[in-house]
Amino acid sequence: MSRLLTLARDLQRRKARERQRLFVAEGIRTVEELLASPVAVTGALTTEQLLATPRGRALRAALEQRGTEIVELSERNFATASDTDSPQGIIAIAEIPRRELSSLAVADRCTLLVLDGVQDPGNVGTILRTAAGLGANATIALPGTVDLWNAKVVRSAMGAHFQHPAVHTTWPQLDSFLGERGVVLWGADAHGASLHASDRPGRLAIAVGNEGAGLDAPVRARADRLVSLPLASGVESLNVAVAAGIFLYELIA
Amino acid sequence: MSRLLTLARDLQRRKARERQRLFVAEGIRTVEELLASPVAVTGALTTEQLLATPRGRALRAALEQRGTEIVELSERNFATASDTDSPQGIIAIAEIPRRELSSLAVADRCTLLVLDGVQDPGNVGTILRTAAGLGANATIALPGTVDLWNAKVVRSAMGAHFQHPAVHTTWPQLDSFLGERGVVLWGADAHGASLHASDRPGRLAIAVGNEGAGLDAPVRARADRLVSLPLASGVESLNVAVAAGIFLYELIA
Repeated sequence: MSRLLTLARDLQRRKARERQRLFVAEGIRTVEELLASPVAVTGALTTEQLLATPRGRALRAALEQRGTEIVELSERNFATASDTDSPQGIIAIAEIPRRELSSLAVADRCTLLVLDGVQDPGNVGTILRTAAGLGANATIALPGTVDLWNAKVVRSAMGAHFQHPAVHTTWPQLDSFLGERGVVLWGADAHGASLHASDRPGRLAIAVGNEGAGLDAPVRARADRLVSLPLASGVESLNVAVAAGIFLYELIA
Repeated sequence: MSRLLTLARDLQRRKARERQRLFVAEGIRTVEELLASPVAVTGALTTEQLLATPRGRALRAALEQRGTEIVELSERNFATASDTDSPQGIIAIAEIPRRELSSLAVADRCTLLVLDGVQDPGNVGTILRTAAGLGANATIALPGTVDLWNAKVVRSAMGAHFQHPAVHTTWPQLDSFLGERGVVLWGADAHGASLHASDRPGRLAIAVGNEGAGLDAPVRARADRLVSLPLASGVESLNVAVAAGIFLYELIA
């Protein structure tokens, strides 16, 4: 079996991605975004299906032009590395950008988004796309959050974090970072005060929590303010990606 | 085979739901929301699995107390009517609320959300939950939008449109309705002007379009204003549920 196919299958596991510092990007749109980004591409798996459309053929040509190692597979073999129900015949393997919390630039006015145990890959991908689109300065994932380089996250982020700085870190590390850089932490919480964006400090991190349980106790305890969006009676909460979008829009605009 | 099981399986098809004016609600949370709403429940399918948790047993007892017809099935039979990967052993069959566009109350200040060809059931469910939570007065689905009573939409709406008015209609019907009631139509469009909520007319309908193609030509042409959210370069668009959430929050708040 091809080395690249074995590698792509292995990279379905988080541990393997963390060890190898590699991830897979699947689908035409995602791989197009990858090639348009500074992220280094290690290799690609394709099937004949990719050549069925002009867009697919253009993508294949772009990979060839870069000298990327390409392995052509049968649809059956390809499927063993694919993560989608309807594969488009293209998977790229690429390097996880080396980003550290400690090297994050913190301007006098900056807005950081913290994900505290957000589990659903679709939600996290949508949030990364939103954070990049609305101009958040970085997204910081705490433990309990799905891996930012999970194939489903990568697909639903539509290339957002190929450019937007997104890092995993631990709570003690984030806690020190916030203190050292003078970044104020706000937490989204159903029982928080109504959001008033005009009160925002220059350096702000806004944390959103797990889909069911909300923020973790240490994050909640450390937050300078808990904020909420006023909701109609009978509706307990908004989807976390929608809530994050509203918070970021209000705080950045 | 039980009549209710046959019915539930039939209701997986949109045509059957439209003909019978019935839909299925699956999962503990969704059925709890259903029982807390004014929607009429016709019957329920359960498995032993439902009785494995106190919350499941309470739900079963609540159904019994109402005198709802309950059919207990093997997990295998239940699975033929289920729409989820991990069934929780409860499906209810209920009546689609009879709501007509023409009977929608239109106050001097009201905010209506129009879905123009939004296809993904998860997006539409999330949008209904958002519209209900933020206090939109109704959600109106144009052709090309997934059925509001599709099982996945119902599940991801988390009970929102058991209460929040949500209707399907055609473009000519919506067009007349807007004219007769003096409701101004705005359309969300990547090339629209930046949103300024302070300019909003009292009676406003905001339309969001298909995930890829945006608004349909007649809707775009009829809109009094096309509005957009300013996005960072390199990000083409936001997820439609996130965008709808930001528009509604800005326009209603």
